[in-house]
Amino acid sequence: MEKIPYKIYLSENEIPKQWYNVRADMKNKPAPLLNPGTQKPMTLEELSGVFCTELAKQELDDTTPYIDIPQEIRDFYKMYRPAPLVRAYCLEKELDTPAKIYYKFEGNNTSGSHKLNSAIAQAYYAKEQGLKGVTTETGAGQWGTALSMACAYLGLDCKVYMVKCSYEQKPFRREVMRTYGADVTPSPSSTTEVGRKILAEHPDTTGSLGCAISEAVETAVKSEGYRYVLGSVLSQVLLHQSVIGLEAKAALDKYGVKPDIIIGCAGGGSNLGGLISPFMGEKLRGEADYEFIAVEPASCPSLTRGRYAYDFCDTGMVCPLAKMYTLGSSFIPSANHAGGLRYHGMSSVLSQLYDDGLMSARSVEQTSVFEAAEKFARIEGILPAPESSHAIRVAIDEALKCKETGEEKTILFGLTGTGYFDMVAYQRFNDGEMSDYIPTDEDLKAGLDALPKINA
Amino acid sequence: MEKIPYKIYLSENEIPKQWYNVRADMKNKPAPLLNPGTQKPMTLEELSGVFCTELAKQELDDTTPYIDIPQEIRDFYKMYRPAPLVRAYCLEKELDTPAKIYYKFEGNNTSGSHKLNSAIAQAYYAKEQGLKGVTTETGAGQWGTALSMACAYLGLDCKVYMVKCSYEQKPFRREVMRTYGADVTPSPSSTTEVGRKILAEHPDTTGSLGCAISEAVETAVKSEGYRYVLGSVLSQVLLHQSVIGLEAKAALDKYGVKPDIIIGCAGGGSNLGGLISPFMGEKLRGEADYEFIAVEPASCPSLTRGRYAYDFCDTGMVCPLAKMYTLGSSFIPSANHAGGLRYHGMSSVLSQLYDDGLMSARSVEQTSVFEAAEKFARIEGILPAPESSHAIRVAIDEALKCKETGEEKTILFGLTGTGYFDMVAYQRFNDGEMSDYIPTDEDLKAGLDALPKINA
Repeated sequence: MEKIPYKIYLSENEIPKQWYNVRADMKNKPAPLLNPGTQKPMTLEELSGVFCTELAKQELDDTTPYIDIPQEIRDFYKMYRPAPLVRAYCLEKELDTPAKIYYKFEGNNTSGSHKLNSAIAQAYYAKEQGLKGVTTETGAGQWGTALSMACAYLGLDCKVYMVKCSYEQKPFRREVMRTYGADVTPSPSSTTEVGRKILAEHPDTTGSLGCAISEAVETAVKSEGYRYVLGSVLSQVLLHQSVIGLEAKAALDKYGVKPDIIIGCAGGGSNLGGLISPFMGEKLRGEADYEFIAVEPASCPSLTRGRYAYDFCDTGMVCPLAKMYTLGSSFIPSANHAGGLRYHGMSSVLSQLYDDGLMSARSVEQTSVFEAAEKFARIEGILPAPESSHAIRVAIDEALKCKETGEEKTILFGLTGTGYFDMVAYQRFNDGEMSDYIPTDEDLKAGLDALPKINA
Repeated sequence: MEKIPYKIYLSENEIPKQWYNVRADMKNKPAPLLNPGTQKPMTLEELSGVFCTELAKQELDDTTPYIDIPQEIRDFYKMYRPAPLVRAYCLEKELDTPAKIYYKFEGNNTSGSHKLNSAIAQAYYAKEQGLKGVTTETGAGQWGTALSMACAYLGLDCKVYMVKCSYEQKPFRREVMRTYGADVTPSPSSTTEVGRKILAEHPDTTGSLGCAISEAVETAVKSEGYRYVLGSVLSQVLLHQSVIGLEAKAALDKYGVKPDIIIGCAGGGSNLGGLISPFMGEKLRGEADYEFIAVEPASCPSLTRGRYAYDFCDTGMVCPLAKMYTLGSSFIPSANHAGGLRYHGMSSVLSQLYDDGLMSARSVEQTSVFEAAEKFARIEGILPAPESSHAIRVAIDEALKCKETGEEKTILFGLTGTGYFDMVAYQRFNDGEMSDYIPTDEDLKAGLDALPKINA
């Protein structure tokens, strides 16, 4: 067998031509989205008022295993894909571990993350439908940047509601979006009813993802020729992100490598869901077995400490209800939490897989995450995003376990992106001013107690 | 012939194993560095007081055409090389030009630029010599970041003097360097004699590259076990950067493509020199012909408006004298100049080639540079560094000329890096607040009149 290179690049014609829909192989399907008024499953017609019709179809489709990727999306993919699968030789050597470590690196594009994979898909279907533009929210800014890039490429309008504290603390992210022609509004804003209501009640609020979602949805629904798009949580997003796992698997297959453990950070679940999809498919069909680990921040522990229940996807309660592991739609991580992974719930697909015992979850504290990030940066040369560093933390922990036991496990993790726009958090770490915070059960009680009545 | 892909990646074993030293094929060699005291050519012994011995040898070697790249450097290269050669299909389509446009993209690494190619080489030789660490200066911050990364990898100390205005305006660059363990000091500082002198004379100065060089050299010379390293201008740096051109040429050769025009931005000349080296070698040996265009800012026009003369490399006049196209060592670009390319002189190698009529030069104004940058970002998906965008501007201009004439020229340009840490400049552009400034002959007179007497 040929020596495995540091970086495995597939060729352009090996970029997947179809997305893989893991729901098709799930025995227990994810619970359907519910209309918050009727509490009945959302119909295609209802969903099409918010999402593009084709995306609404994808959202509801839990039986078709493979869905063709349109040529125009594949052309766009060629500008930044295939993404490299990297063998972490230097990290292995530094850890002195018998484990073999691989990571799928999705940060080699201007959005700085995997988010672009779904942004181009969602923008494409909006364009196909003849729409004028799309609306969305962004927190840390990766999704907003990705969507701005996709819209600039296709000539679509892009309206982004950016969580106010990020808008102010991350002016550079904002400027990247503006450079791509997006219209960026700090949220909550006075441009929407829900924004005005929240501002009236909490004039000093610095915003939240849930609130920005409400504003983006309201704007889409009320504007002629606009639809709303979302960068995570939804089943359609996991479908688009399956390109990550499909490429990773193709690269590993080339060298006859089978991972034992697959690790990904999880906020809403888009990266983890995309990375594990094809591997999980094999597990669901009984063709192979893998250990899957979702890594979440100890300060926003939806899988490890949340409840599996129907909940609102947004603060304003204008979105459909989703059944998911959730901390309650009013939950906001403590102010000392850096980076993304701050959503109160988890993708319905991943929630169901987790509830079925098909994957595990682990929560980690942020100082240990940044320690792993710094080590990784110095050894592997890539300055990782705080989100991605959650996966690095657990990959290093697992590799060190192998060192103790002598097991030669193969570890694959998702390196979702770069941290170039997160240097305020790195500065806090460099200055020794970063702290940890684990919410008490009491802290979590209010959010869990306020879950909608449908769960009773 | 197979369709040329969007991105051509060489395989790992195609990464060059030798650097190419263009001086070996030059009939008129670049003029030697002079000792500012004796005005005689610097000896190996003299140079070895400032630089590592092996690098001093490379600096003086104008006859050996190929120099082996040590294995440890090639291992490091594997973490971020080969860099892709990109066919700009989308840009060609947008411009509706018959020209074929390629760019060599060097920004896919955390330093964000090609600077890492020489940083690892210089750090490697310092380590080999058993040194404790290295000192350097940085302006826009790409070089300092690259050196920090290389030193972290090799376990070397890294002291960076960062031009004070950048230190304050680019805190994120500073934090990247600190994350890699570098010691970053704003320049001028009170840690050196030359810094104290400049501060006494100009207490409100925001610093300059020439001043930071003086401080870094002084610290290296006065500290046991340290040497000074420099990211551009020097012939050794062009040697290391030849990896850019060698890879680009290998990728083009694979598809039987021969460029007509090769374009690069030029500050000190490291990127341009590296990109054109192997092509220039063919031209010098009479094997092929190419048109080479150096692009510089209208606000710092060393090639187009400077004088070819011996000059100091630094403000403090502690460095050897170099013969180069220069605006005078006291020249500082006007405050409205964004980004790098602000050095007063140009690589001696490139200066000689330019003086011999083997390449041309063009200066461009920054608003037109940012217009090109924005267009490129939206169409090709990569947000370019302001420096790199100088080359984009001229590549677009040449492609549009082809549209007029109907010529199907093949254009290759160097995309040296990304602009993620330059969003303050982009913001000025987005807000319509960017302006141009072309120095008058009167503005340039003081610097040119103050050139050292040796030229008389």
